[in-house]
Amino acid sequence: MSFLNLFAHTKDVEEYAAGDVVFRVGDPGSKMYVVLEGRVSIEIHGKRVLEAGPGELVGEMALIDAAARSATTTALEASRLAVVDEKRFLFMVQQTPFFALQVMRVLVNRLRSMDDQL
Amino acid sequence: MSFLNLFAHTKDVEEYAAGDVVFRVGDPGSKMYVVLEGRVSIEIHGKRVLEAGPGELVGEMALIDAAARSATTTALEASRLAVVDEKRFLFMVQQTPFFALQVMRVLVNRLRSMDDQL
Repeated sequence: MSFLNLFAHTKDVEEYAAGDVVFRVGDPGSKMYVVLEGRVSIEIHGKRVLEAGPGELVGEMALIDAAARSATTTALEASRLAVVDEKRFLFMVQQTPFFALQVMRVLVNRLRSMDDQL
Repeated sequence: MSFLNLFAHTKDVEEYAAGDVVFRVGDPGSKMYVVLEGRVSIEIHGKRVLEAGPGELVGEMALIDAAARSATTTALEASRLAVVDEKRFLFMVQQTPFFALQVMRVLVNRLRSMDDQL
């Protein structure tokens, strides 16, 4: 199972064309996104540190700690992103432990990737 | 509320003297720890990247993704650590959404701290 399965029937979807900015570093962040189709980049200090494709999520950090966006995310191709706002996020953490574990795994993967770059 | 409240009455506690290694990078990791008393360091590539004190947790990454330890953790002073094995971890994620959110917040804090060092 992946995030994709959890969001297959969601109606809250945003569409981006190649080059569109999804959010910028420093923006207030109150939602995260699950990539349904397409591909987005995650840039820190102007450097592309990650890419995310179908079933992967972006924007979860600002949602979890209510601080500003730590990265800029840009669509690399035409992309459809499912939107998860704070209310839905908290509901899913409570109702779907698998979702909470998947979010933790994503964060741990990113930490390991950052460790390698240190 | 903090992790400390959740573990105030736990019986599964390990004690370390100053200088004792809790786990080493590369070890298989099947449990995480919540610092009840004392202070531990977290070292990557021989460099101290973080310290954790009462109410903070260490060792959660290997537990979450079932990979090897990404860091070495050493007690900086006499310390008491509550042990959370995989079974208990999964139980807590399911039964205590607050616990899952706290783990996520810790991971996000670490990611932001790593971002700053990039």
